[in-house]
Amino acid sequence: MIASNDNAKVKNVRELNSKHKARVTQSLFVVEGVKMCMEAPTDRINRVFVSESFYQDADNRKALEEKSPYFVDGDKLFVVKDSIFEGMCDTKTPQGILTVVEMKGTSFDELFESDKAPFIMILESIQDPGNLGTIIRTAEGAGVTGIIINDTTVDLYNPKTIRSTMGSLYRMKIYESKNLKETVDELKKRGITTYAAHLKGKEFYYEKSYKGPVAFMIGNEGNGLTDELSDMADTYIKIPMEGSVESLNAGVAASVLMYETLRQRKG
Amino acid sequence: MIASNDNAKVKNVRELNSKHKARVTQSLFVVEGVKMCMEAPTDRINRVFVSESFYQDADNRKALEEKSPYFVDGDKLFVVKDSIFEGMCDTKTPQGILTVVEMKGTSFDELFESDKAPFIMILESIQDPGNLGTIIRTAEGAGVTGIIINDTTVDLYNPKTIRSTMGSLYRMKIYESKNLKETVDELKKRGITTYAAHLKGKEFYYEKSYKGPVAFMIGNEGNGLTDELSDMADTYIKIPMEGSVESLNAGVAASVLMYETLRQRKG
Repeated sequence: MIASNDNAKVKNVRELNSKHKARVTQSLFVVEGVKMCMEAPTDRINRVFVSESFYQDADNRKALEEKSPYFVDGDKLFVVKDSIFEGMCDTKTPQGILTVVEMKGTSFDELFESDKAPFIMILESIQDPGNLGTIIRTAEGAGVTGIIINDTTVDLYNPKTIRSTMGSLYRMKIYESKNLKETVDELKKRGITTYAAHLKGKEFYYEKSYKGPVAFMIGNEGNGLTDELSDMADTYIKIPMEGSVESLNAGVAASVLMYETLRQRKG
Repeated sequence: MIASNDNAKVKNVRELNSKHKARVTQSLFVVEGVKMCMEAPTDRINRVFVSESFYQDADNRKALEEKSPYFVDGDKLFVVKDSIFEGMCDTKTPQGILTVVEMKGTSFDELFESDKAPFIMILESIQDPGNLGTIIRTAEGAGVTGIIINDTTVDLYNPKTIRSTMGSLYRMKIYESKNLKETVDELKKRGITTYAAHLKGKEFYYEKSYKGPVAFMIGNEGNGLTDELSDMADTYIKIPMEGSVESLNAGVAASVLMYETLRQRKG
């Protein structure tokens, strides 16, 4: 059992949880809690840490065993003294299990592997980890086939982003673009119609058909889309706003567009 | 100029920002930043505090003056030394202005003062301040006529809730029910059809018409609606979920239903 804060593996988990650079360099990230650990793809599990009291519970051990033999016998499972385990976690009330998972990038081409008509969300510089995570979770729910983010978007592997995805992070295809303009050009070459939710929009979002290949641009929380990007959209659409509301939360705007698309596609 | 942390007014703002009980007892809450302060209803402004450097800016003083004479000459404006002002704020990077605002409750009857068909959101024990605030903001945007919360919902006047509403808190009618079941009975007596987003739902949410008087029940983030409340709904509806998604974020589910209602009502 690990009983020291100075243990190299313990230190490394703390680093992975707190430092973007450590995550990128090692191509690893940390997920916490039973749900996120149990849903982690077994071939991407690097290490699993459980607290002593978690491990002493026979039901917990059985659940781990059912998930993968790695979790029980292998050299990937580490039992940690409760007080040390707490210090490794980003959550305030840890459940007693965390897993170090290998990152898996998505290439641009992989965005189009679905047998559904492409349904892409382009996220420009989203800053709030909770917003990004919630968009990823909702995107899976709405049948989005791929997400594109730029390199000024908040870290995908920030512990708060990960938690908010509720597991969708493992399953959603997310391509990180170094140049959104070029990427949008590529989308157009593939026959995808691009929409930007924009105050300049003349038509309401629900007046367009999204049954064909579509991509939606969603901008940063404070500033919306840059002109540079929104100028590239084939069509501006607007989301109606009653009262004195000037804008919607980025995650809400994205959700409304994604679920309108699903509604049309199922209808 | 106030230059001491021990000043009674300074202490009171800190209390109002950090303590639910202080807010309820005094029936006051604190809003921060230019937008939230400028939008505060002038007849509900209790006190305004500005940092010394904010007040030294002539443009800022002009903006205050245009808003209300109270902000300049009256006995409601207090200039505070920058370092003291920072300690009064909940935000990490304060803009230099905060306002103490009087609470204004909404009676049940006031929920029906709109000339639109009633469009009510019933929120049961929402726990995340950001979720609650975002629902209030989106509700105003979607033309909701009133919101009902119960007394186990997170504090409406929590600084994070307030910020997330982006000013909609001033304008949205929000009734705090001591007994949601009785309140739902009252809604039914007024001819309002109640819907619960529920996994037991057989029809998709977009297969129903919401042009008449409607109310939607939204449950707590972790547990959804209690059976006690959802049993009272006239109709269960379901929001389709693709992939392996088991549930949507409460704010997202609320947003999807609210915007579907607005779409139908505008169409």
